[in-house]
Amino acid sequence: MSHSLIDQLTEAFRCLPGIGPKSAQRMVWHLLERDREGGKKLASTMVEAMQRVDHCQQCHNFSEDEICTICSSASRDDTLLCVVESPADVLAIEQSGSFRGKYFVTMGNLSPIDGIGPDEIGADALLTRSSQQVVEVILAMSSTVEGEATAHYLGELLKAGDVTVSRIAHGIPIGGELEYVDGGTLTHALQGRKTI
Amino acid sequence: MSHSLIDQLTEAFRCLPGIGPKSAQRMVWHLLERDREGGKKLASTMVEAMQRVDHCQQCHNFSEDEICTICSSASRDDTLLCVVESPADVLAIEQSGSFRGKYFVTMGNLSPIDGIGPDEIGADALLTRSSQQVVEVILAMSSTVEGEATAHYLGELLKAGDVTVSRIAHGIPIGGELEYVDGGTLTHALQGRKTI
Repeated sequence: MSHSLIDQLTEAFRCLPGIGPKSAQRMVWHLLERDREGGKKLASTMVEAMQRVDHCQQCHNFSEDEICTICSSASRDDTLLCVVESPADVLAIEQSGSFRGKYFVTMGNLSPIDGIGPDEIGADALLTRSSQQVVEVILAMSSTVEGEATAHYLGELLKAGDVTVSRIAHGIPIGGELEYVDGGTLTHALQGRKTI
Repeated sequence: MSHSLIDQLTEAFRCLPGIGPKSAQRMVWHLLERDREGGKKLASTMVEAMQRVDHCQQCHNFSEDEICTICSSASRDDTLLCVVESPADVLAIEQSGSFRGKYFVTMGNLSPIDGIGPDEIGADALLTRSSQQVVEVILAMSSTVEGEATAHYLGELLKAGDVTVSRIAHGIPIGGELEYVDGGTLTHALQGRKTI
């Protein structure tokens, strides 16, 4: 049984994030027993995506076109640029419907220990991008140690240019009860209080 | 963004068991960003498996050959036949190393409400199979309502022939503490006690 096609497929499924041997085995049996058509469709779409999806030349998000739909949209505000860590963050902000500017995706945070420096997150490209029409750059990295470090680095870099640099607000989440919010968030929320 | 290749791939991933929209999205981004080679390999293995893997003609387990390696093995006991619900059960018994006979996989239990009757679980094929060399048929279905019903049905069917029919033992799991074992299992364990 050691090198059967079933074992090879189970092994191949392990390349997916969060999939261990048991889940992989279950996926293989499910496809073989119940959804061979689904499996074939998944395989062909995967081949096409692996070949054709690249990064948008302007915002670095994933795109099958040279310039993605958001970057090429004429109805969006070219003067506002939101810098995020990942495609998931673009999706989250788009779903909130609260932002009509454009994006720049760093595809990760600075992490010298992993060899991820300014080049890897596209610092130069961001600098070039923010010198075109952009009036304000919003740094929307996560509030983690790596996110804050990246935001700080990019902030210093961008402030040398002719743009306003801002950081998204930190505070109590909407609907969040004060007693369950952690100390760090409370400190930020109090320091960032606004007069009403 | 509605019908981009990325969205199509995310949608296609939903055919896998236990994969919701968020996990599917994460898989797509992971493959695109970190493991395109893995994705291509997964896709090609999947296509090959969907086309070439069928059921073993003798035991009905998945196999790329007409007769699977277990069924065609000369070193296994042809007189002992173990009937299980799924390929996972074959794997579990094989890994325990405690059985050297052959198998028959029903690929599910009787479930009239889902249209799964004797034909779907291969009752006739099992009857034919057990009339060849087989001396004892061990019914190793799960101890669920469906498993018990299937075992009962197949037991009655097989007893008409010239074979001994047995059911795997139910009782306290090895290493299991008595106080944490459920009442049904305890009842079975007491009724099935052995003189030592």
